[in-house]
Amino acid sequence: MPPISSLHNPTIKRIRSLAEKKHRQEQGLFVAEGAKVLARAQSLGWEPEIVVSTGRAEPWGGATMIEVTEPVMVSLSAQNNPPPVVAVFHQRFARQVSLDGLWLALEGLRDPGNLGSIIRTADAAGAMGIVLAGPTCDPWGRDCVRATMGSIFAVPLIRLSTVKLIDLCHAWPGDVAGSHLQGTEDFRRSYREPTLLVVGSEGEGLSPQLAAACSVLVRIPMRAGPDSLNVAAATALMLYEVRRTAL
Amino acid sequence: MPPISSLHNPTIKRIRSLAEKKHRQEQGLFVAEGAKVLARAQSLGWEPEIVVSTGRAEPWGGATMIEVTEPVMVSLSAQNNPPPVVAVFHQRFARQVSLDGLWLALEGLRDPGNLGSIIRTADAAGAMGIVLAGPTCDPWGRDCVRATMGSIFAVPLIRLSTVKLIDLCHAWPGDVAGSHLQGTEDFRRSYREPTLLVVGSEGEGLSPQLAAACSVLVRIPMRAGPDSLNVAAATALMLYEVRRTAL
Repeated sequence: MPPISSLHNPTIKRIRSLAEKKHRQEQGLFVAEGAKVLARAQSLGWEPEIVVSTGRAEPWGGATMIEVTEPVMVSLSAQNNPPPVVAVFHQRFARQVSLDGLWLALEGLRDPGNLGSIIRTADAAGAMGIVLAGPTCDPWGRDCVRATMGSIFAVPLIRLSTVKLIDLCHAWPGDVAGSHLQGTEDFRRSYREPTLLVVGSEGEGLSPQLAAACSVLVRIPMRAGPDSLNVAAATALMLYEVRRTAL
Repeated sequence: MPPISSLHNPTIKRIRSLAEKKHRQEQGLFVAEGAKVLARAQSLGWEPEIVVSTGRAEPWGGATMIEVTEPVMVSLSAQNNPPPVVAVFHQRFARQVSLDGLWLALEGLRDPGNLGSIIRTADAAGAMGIVLAGPTCDPWGRDCVRATMGSIFAVPLIRLSTVKLIDLCHAWPGDVAGSHLQGTEDFRRSYREPTLLVVGSEGEGLSPQLAAACSVLVRIPMRAGPDSLNVAAATALMLYEVRRTAL
């Protein structure tokens, strides 16, 4: 069969529609790009619904395999230099938080690039998973997926309301450490396991209710002048500090 | 005088043209937005050429003060909710690297958001300045300026060719620490002062020539799976590690 060359092909149109959050939510799907990222997905046992490539690709589970022309691939990709292969997966949220190791909870994160970078760092630091609370940006959007560089497939994600997250904080057996500009303790301390790290949004930081549910509020020291760090940078420092003796 | 309401006003057109790198370079100017960011600039002794506001603004040195309508401000701002004030400044590069404290050198960074985040973290960590080497993205672009949250005014920036940076590495009296995926030492070590931290680009990391000019190549440990961190996250970890005992 010749490669699909029409942008009006129904499957191509359906995949392109996944650039919009509304369509991702309706279909419960998302798109990931690039051979390296997809190899990571495969090694972690993910199976796509559709694999789209500009050349021949190896079969992958029960995925529908589609060959397309370069211009069609350009239309599917978020990148300037489109990759040779993209795949469509079912979104997957974890069912529950395990009470062990290190978990990260993010409240109301807005920037997909920040969220993607944090998922990537959480993966590298060996976090068990991430709780997304409040009106957080969509982790399955392509800017976020791309910024994770494949870690979206490795780090369990759970959506909780802020109220449920506060319940979780209260039930948590170890330290619940909130990163806070008015934190009273230096973040370079020891943390009781399991550790739940709680980080607020770019603009506002932690909400007062969530801050009150933490067992300790920690602060990253800064020289006088700037009043905060980028949330992804701050979270990287926190994750690596909690895991300092383990990595 | 009534506020300027025309997008065809020559000054407004000139400021809008600064969204493009070509025009920023020709004019040697850049734009910063928002009252808080501009307060930081003022506290650090910067004086803008032009201040544009939607209401009345306090005089600021010899700056030309311009009042504009909301729609004109929308046209000037990179943000969805435009700030009440933006200002145009002369770009400023530092003349030389001082051989003290902590300096950061970035080779070929491509993403303005990453560069801005790194400038912000370098400010918070108390770095003396940043060397931009190779084909690095423009620090005066609005995405970068915005991501610095005012730190663009606090952290001296210097442009050097990669060859000059290698010369600097060889002449450096303390540790020249390169962040490298094949680094042989854990990044959590002590660093001889003054310290020059050298970080490569998003895709390729450090070039072999620059890596060879480092006195030590350090590695951030990761659990198996992901093969690297986002460059802004990695640089945050490095900066705070070098300054661990000082902050």
